[in-house]
Amino acid sequence: MTKVIKNGTVVTADLTYKADVLIEDGKIVEIGPNLSGDEELDATGCYVMPGGVDPHTHLEMPFMGTYSSDDFDSGTRAALAGGTTMVVDFALPSPGQGLLDAIQMWDNKSTRANCDYSFHMAITWWSEQVFNEMETVVRDKGINTFKHFMAYKGALMVNDDEMYVSFKRCAELGATPLVHAENGDVVAELQRKLMEEGNNGPEAHAYSRPPEVEGEATNRAIMIADMAGVPLYVVHTSCEESHEAIRRARTQGKRVYGEPLIQHLTLDESEYFDKDWDHAARRVMSPPFRNKKHQDSLWAGLQSGSLSVVATDHCAFTTDQKRYGVGDFTKIPNGTGGLEDRMPMLWTHGVETGRLTPNEFVAVTSTNIAKILNCYPKKGAILVGADADIVVWDPAREKTISANNQQSAIDYNVFEGQQVKGLPRFTLTRGKVAVHDGEIRAEEGHGEFVMRAPNTPVNKALSTWKELTAPRRVERTGIPASGV
Amino acid sequence: MTKVIKNGTVVTADLTYKADVLIEDGKIVEIGPNLSGDEELDATGCYVMPGGVDPHTHLEMPFMGTYSSDDFDSGTRAALAGGTTMVVDFALPSPGQGLLDAIQMWDNKSTRANCDYSFHMAITWWSEQVFNEMETVVRDKGINTFKHFMAYKGALMVNDDEMYVSFKRCAELGATPLVHAENGDVVAELQRKLMEEGNNGPEAHAYSRPPEVEGEATNRAIMIADMAGVPLYVVHTSCEESHEAIRRARTQGKRVYGEPLIQHLTLDESEYFDKDWDHAARRVMSPPFRNKKHQDSLWAGLQSGSLSVVATDHCAFTTDQKRYGVGDFTKIPNGTGGLEDRMPMLWTHGVETGRLTPNEFVAVTSTNIAKILNCYPKKGAILVGADADIVVWDPAREKTISANNQQSAIDYNVFEGQQVKGLPRFTLTRGKVAVHDGEIRAEEGHGEFVMRAPNTPVNKALSTWKELTAPRRVERTGIPASGV
Amino acid sequence: MTKVIKNGTVVTADLTYKADVLIEDGKIVEIGPNLSGDEELDATGCYVMPGGVDPHTHLEMPFMGTYSSDDFDSGTRAALAGGTTMVVDFALPSPGQGLLDAIQMWDNKSTRANCDYSFHMAITWWSEQVFNEMETVVRDKGINTFKHFMAYKGALMVNDDEMYVSFKRCAELGATPLVHAENGDVVAELQRKLMEEGNNGPEAHAYSRPPEVEGEATNRAIMIADMAGVPLYVVHTSCEESHEAIRRARTQGKRVYGEPLIQHLTLDESEYFDKDWDHAARRVMSPPFRNKKHQDSLWAGLQSGSLSVVATDHCAFTTDQKRYGVGDFTKIPNGTGGLEDRMPMLWTHGVETGRLTPNEFVAVTSTNIAKILNCYPKKGAILVGADADIVVWDPAREKTISANNQQSAIDYNVFEGQQVKGLPRFTLTRGKVAVHDGEIRAEEGHGEFVMRAPNTPVNKALSTWKELTAPRRVERTGIPASGV
Amino acid sequence: MTKVIKNGTVVTADLTYKADVLIEDGKIVEIGPNLSGDEELDATGCYVMPGGVDPHTHLEMPFMGTYSSDDFDSGTRAALAGGTTMVVDFALPSPGQGLLDAIQMWDNKSTRANCDYSFHMAITWWSEQVFNEMETVVRDKGINTFKHFMAYKGALMVNDDEMYVSFKRCAELGATPLVHAENGDVVAELQRKLMEEGNNGPEAHAYSRPPEVEGEATNRAIMIADMAGVPLYVVHTSCEESHEAIRRARTQGKRVYGEPLIQHLTLDESEYFDKDWDHAARRVMSPPFRNKKHQDSLWAGLQSGSLSVVATDHCAFTTDQKRYGVGDFTKIPNGTGGLEDRMPMLWTHGVETGRLTPNEFVAVTSTNIAKILNCYPKKGAILVGADADIVVWDPAREKTISANNQQSAIDYNVFEGQQVKGLPRFTLTRGKVAVHDGEIRAEEGHGEFVMRAPNTPVNKALSTWKELTAPRRVERTGIPASGV
Repeated sequence: MTKVIKNGTVVTADLTYKADVLIEDGKIVEIGPNLSGDEELDATGCYVMPGGVDPHTHLEMPFMGTYSSDDFDSGTRAALAGGTTMVVDFALPSPGQGLLDAIQMWDNKSTRANCDYSFHMAITWWSEQVFNEMETVVRDKGINTFKHFMAYKGALMVNDDEMYVSFKRCAELGATPLVHAENGDVVAELQRKLMEEGNNGPEAHAYSRPPEVEGEATNRAIMIADMAGVPLYVVHTSCEESHEAIRRARTQGKRVYGEPLIQHLTLDESEYFDKDWDHAARRVMSPPFRNKKHQDSLWAGLQSGSLSVVATDHCAFTTDQKRYGVGDFTKIPNGTGGLEDRMPMLWTHGVETGRLTPNEFVAVTSTNIAKILNCYPKKGAILVGADADIVVWDPAREKTISANNQQSAIDYNVFEGQQVKGLPRFTLTRGKVAVHDGEIRAEEGHGEFVMRAPNTPVNKALSTWKELTAPRRVERTGIPASGV
Repeated sequence: MTKVIKNGTVVTADLTYKADVLIEDGKIVEIGPNLSGDEELDATGCYVMPGGVDPHTHLEMPFMGTYSSDDFDSGTRAALAGGTTMVVDFALPSPGQGLLDAIQMWDNKSTRANCDYSFHMAITWWSEQVFNEMETVVRDKGINTFKHFMAYKGALMVNDDEMYVSFKRCAELGATPLVHAENGDVVAELQRKLMEEGNNGPEAHAYSRPPEVEGEATNRAIMIADMAGVPLYVVHTSCEESHEAIRRARTQGKRVYGEPLIQHLTLDESEYFDKDWDHAARRVMSPPFRNKKHQDSLWAGLQSGSLSVVATDHCAFTTDQKRYGVGDFTKIPNGTGGLEDRMPMLWTHGVETGRLTPNEFVAVTSTNIAKILNCYPKKGAILVGADADIVVWDPAREKTISANNQQSAIDYNVFEGQQVKGLPRFTLTRGKVAVHDGEIRAEEGHGEFVMRAPNTPVNKALSTWKELTAPRRVERTGIPASGV
Repeated sequence: MTKVIKNGTVVTADLTYKADVLIEDGKIVEIGPNLSGDEELDATGCYVMPGGVDPHTHLEMPFMGTYSSDDFDSGTRAALAGGTTMVVDFALPSPGQGLLDAIQMWDNKSTRANCDYSFHMAITWWSEQVFNEMETVVRDKGINTFKHFMAYKGALMVNDDEMYVSFKRCAELGATPLVHAENGDVVAELQRKLMEEGNNGPEAHAYSRPPEVEGEATNRAIMIADMAGVPLYVVHTSCEESHEAIRRARTQGKRVYGEPLIQHLTLDESEYFDKDWDHAARRVMSPPFRNKKHQDSLWAGLQSGSLSVVATDHCAFTTDQKRYGVGDFTKIPNGTGGLEDRMPMLWTHGVETGRLTPNEFVAVTSTNIAKILNCYPKKGAILVGADADIVVWDPAREKTISANNQQSAIDYNVFEGQQVKGLPRFTLTRGKVAVHDGEIRAEEGHGEFVMRAPNTPVNKALSTWKELTAPRRVERTGIPASGV
Repeated sequence: MTKVIKNGTVVTADLTYKADVLIEDGKIVEIGPNLSGDEELDATGCYVMPGGVDPHTHLEMPFMGTYSSDDFDSGTRAALAGGTTMVVDFALPSPGQGLLDAIQMWDNKSTRANCDYSFHMAITWWSEQVFNEMETVVRDKGINTFKHFMAYKGALMVNDDEMYVSFKRCAELGATPLVHAENGDVVAELQRKLMEEGNNGPEAHAYSRPPEVEGEATNRAIMIADMAGVPLYVVHTSCEESHEAIRRARTQGKRVYGEPLIQHLTLDESEYFDKDWDHAARRVMSPPFRNKKHQDSLWAGLQSGSLSVVATDHCAFTTDQKRYGVGDFTKIPNGTGGLEDRMPMLWTHGVETGRLTPNEFVAVTSTNIAKILNCYPKKGAILVGADADIVVWDPAREKTISANNQQSAIDYNVFEGQQVKGLPRFTLTRGKVAVHDGEIRAEEGHGEFVMRAPNTPVNKALSTWKELTAPRRVERTGIPASGV
């Protein structure tokens, strides 16, 4: 059984051209004019693009005795509905728990996935066991990325010591560290102070995590990665301060990637000042939304290449879950949805406005991250041999975003009421049509785990450079006797 | 007759993978394992990469009643010897001469080319004729790039007025302006002053063109391009000042490209302080070589993407020609060679050191410029359908650069004595083997002109954005009677 | 007859302390506790500060056959009413007119001044006469500052050539160049284009002079001053782009000063979008008002010292005069008032908010500029021997700014309706009380011209550095025979 | 008994003018022409400037069971010999020791001082006792500055938590925090790694404390100070990375001061690569010397005002003490001398070259720091009423720096062999002549403690601004019931 996508315009990170795409056994087997197959998908007027890769989700994440409400079923269904065909979730060991245990837990949950997925491994504590298991994670488990939380003091947060040894371990293994960059010490103090002053509403969440604490932590992580000799990936870069630190590092030739979220690109802090508590609390995530100045910075980063990837940090909590934090903003579960809306929102606000070319759209929604994560061109490509993770994008299709017709399990949508132009006509996950002219035909359990090998070209080049420029001992004449 | 490149590792801007490459009728027709063809080129241990594209040459350029000494024969032969398979030369109308006339002149010279080539059109004066002919140049002549000299006062230089209207014309036509960015007024004054003070040697050339005048002009050109609503390409970005202006523009989302030369990446200003007049004069080019700080800046720009392309500005003059300037440095013909050495020098100092990945090497030697010039993937790609402009790169091959065994027609080499590691085993120009295991088999006249259409995706996106954000008239109540 | 200011707190750029101030013959003769004099001015609860120096006014400026409406009488009366005791006006030769002629014209007008004043000399064209007269202006006329307009093409504008030779002439004479920094070529084209498109209202004035054209020109002037080896003073720095160029220069140790206007610090571009044509046109000045981002930049510049002086560019036109530009925004006379409001507005928005200390307020309203112009401590100081140009500042005094009770001759005020806190209780000009507890007692003709010698310490230091780092000729072996 | 300094030129941070200076009872009582006194000091050809204030010394500092070798006697004698008339030392509590105890210890040592002095209090641990004693230190002990070490892990280092609460305490008390900014965690790891690799020589000291770790810590301290709402003073700013963080903060209007040392301005890292172990080890201090790029940055910072003060961190160890670290660079006692050489070295390399004006020299050697520390104009001024801490500076006097004729107790000098031009003819400490035409007449025990009150104008202004912009609670309709 073959499928062919006919009459479309292939758009990759590189190139735009008319061609049909032939699919067999879940892979692209031919690209060219006048192809035919057993099943035809008509792409007239559409762009044929790599399916999106969202490198930042938290599906069914444990939280205060419950879980984030989108699991690997509803979450990946939402992804496919919006043109995203791969997600990368975070395996989060509890402090003290082994890395392999955590993978086992995540393996159990992810059997329900509708599309392919991979994991980042989080380093939430440090020990010889963690040090040793990191090797197994990389060599045997196909995971080459390790997440470090600089915030969430007393829970997930690691300190500079731990981060540095973990980063060095990444360097040895050819892996790449990720950071959630906020100064957890300062956030904790600001939270305490705000609560003391009676600032307990959702707006205080934003007050407690100002851009300055994110910029600081980003800058610190960059320095530590530089000392450890390893590239760095900064998740959810939300503000100019953090972006500036990344730009400054890149200006010095450092290998640092920044990942803005679609939420930060299109929503702003005024959401937290809404009179309705629920409205504000539903938007609580870390980092919080920022103002227009920061949005401009993030867009320019995508245009110039100082930021590499648009993600969602999809971590969906229902209104009921959000209300855990009534009277105490620090208890509002952190997280918003976005999986279904990332690509339409980015197309509408990016490509339709002329900020991004269609090729850049592909680059920041799939190709760049596939390269960084070392699963390109299996993912993120329209090339012969690549997985047939494809979105047939109809630039004329429009809708108004609403919780009423979303795939996500929660009862609201932070983009509620937004008019988008540019939507999937078809979404294919390894050749399977999961969205068919707007109709969802996703299949629970279809998704497979994507193994990712270490030692990307950038990791290797950086190691070469660091060896070349390593400290050299001075040969001395006349070392005196010790004074001790 | 087919050719196959066997046993190599394909390296593109995107990707590294083992595959054979099959060639027929000058094009790549298949890429994959176990291919066979009528002729076999063994790439064992080698990288199979797109042939280099050098977007900045001046072959047989008229100068003071004579010509630069490499013509389209020797120049393109040198190119092929070093793995470069396409050059872009500048059609330079004398002030007052029509653009189409200039193209005719360049067409005449380029019949001798050994590899493919294209032209940039220079705008050296302004008139209604120039305005009108720009359209013909773009629509009929396949040229979508227009060069503007901000230096060479009294000769090629255009002023801000002219540059602005020309840039706007480019915007209308979907073309992209290029600039030689140095403040010509200030250079002229500095030259006068230095001569007055008795500073007439080649070192005064460097004194007369400090980084500051280049940075200023780059900054000015960027502003004018922004006002005109058009992307900008800055040729021979040699210093931090200019690079900073480019970075700053990109940080604001502006579409600006910078092109460092291999000379500026690897040679420094100390060359001008050599006791030997000839040594110093042979290195006279504009902009002059800079110090290590500037070199670091340029390398970091290639690493971070703030600079896009490595070129040569190949414009070769013999020692005898250089000696026109004995006693008056302003008469030393400006220009150095580099076509044969660009790729080996960049590999040696970039990839071998770990500054650049092999993929980035391809990006900055061919792919990026092919996209910018809108001739990708005909050039700059290893893709089915692309021209078989291919270099089979042997990373273990070494040599010492010397004028004794170079293709260039001149009697010296600015890289004389440099040890390089990484050289072509084969170079193919549209399927023809021009370098065969070190032996030159180039064929005069084999080269063809490459047509380049306007309206790249970046040009189009920028136009959309500029329309969206254009000034809007305020609707007023109560406009008073005029006071006049 | 002596006067004593009793019971106040002296505030200088340096220092805050309780002391009485004794005045005789127009000068401060003693500062200390328990002084007595023939006349007592009670400063209880007040700050005793140097009277303001406004280095940027255009009083009775010729314009289209008429004059700006505040002359040296009403203008300096407004100045005194607001606590400013010295103004520096611009002697503007018509192109072709000699510098000494222009001074003569300005001498004639300034006889009516109520407070002391000085002139900057404008270089509006270039010739040997101008070159020669510059020396006379500096040596004999007591003027050490030369203004250059990079805008107003076809009228006052000078080009890069002229600017460079004039700057070098300043360097020789120990004088300091000033620039009005906007790219006049681009402004002229933008004006033409806007008019063509039917954008003829006052908002188009803002559109035609975007921050980018100011930033570019500032950057260019800085480079030229650097090449000429002379400090630079940038008038009416209105935006981040210009400020960035100044900061960048200062970061490299260059000697560049920036002067924001009180208008740009406190008013924004929304004024031009007012539905009422008169409202918008009254705010037309160059550069135009900017948005909040630029305001924040300017305030931070005052805080950090990257900007040095707050001025007004006071150039007042009546509504009738503004209406010359109905139907053609390029004909709206450029200029707004501000002399009376500069100090109260800056105190209210600067000191009351905590952005500036009282000492910094003094620095940016008088002391810094007095040093830059080389008339410190005659002006800008509360020191024994200084002129008794003093404002006794009542931080508790409030008013609402209104055209109804202003000294300026025009029929409106751009700050209309602004509530200010912090106003003069007394203003003294060389010992004469011109404002007495709110009542204006200024005396037409009281003002004297302030001679200003060249060669400030900064000019001298920069000259030393430039000599130390000047180009050095390389001593060569083996200069070949010329090739010509 | 009065003294008069005759025939000199008074140079202050503000102003240069001819005047005599009359001194009585240790204070300046008159400044003017033709003064006479009981004793005359001839300043013909000299500048009469405020004596230097060195805000960063460690005299008789406890270290590994011994002490730094210059105590309050030899140290302040060296200071006076070089024109410095006040030092500020650090009272360092051992972790666990009370602040008042530490002051007592320092009080005991400082009785031997030859010139006036003050203390900074170090916060080396945190507790309620520390919190409480900070108030006593400020209110009763006349100390308004608190030092925090971000390095020296396991010893003096405090973490972000502690720093934040201490900074907030400073804000409440109107005090100003100081930081030694290096990331102690990373330094400790780098030390460990270098030792493991056999890099145990003094050059490894430099390798273990690269500019990046200083820049990071500076950036972090700035953020924490901003959150705490307090100005920040960064000691021994040695590199562009740290300076950049300071500049960036100032560009945003933050109140941050940087203090380069004379060593970092004039010596570079090549000292550590000397073949002689002793030579290298004698230069070991933290931060280590840097390269020329960093020196240029520091000089430009002094020129532009982004750096405020030149200090020494004088902490002198003999060669024998340095040899504690043979075989283990981490045991080399950190510190160099400089007290005697700071002003001649800065004059020679700063004023003689034209980088600084004489007024700027005064600003960065005394006036700025006296204002920051709130002891201006008692110190740092030539004003009536100021302490007669005066240096009569002979710009023509020259010497070659040598350990052979220095006041410091140690057996070498890091500036050995440097030729300086510009030396004290006389140094007066509260009117007492301590240097008389080159002869040292200092008097042990003459020095007095300088009380410094809190709440400088900058502290007050910043507090006002922080209150004005503090988080505001949103008034909500419809807060739901808690979900818990």
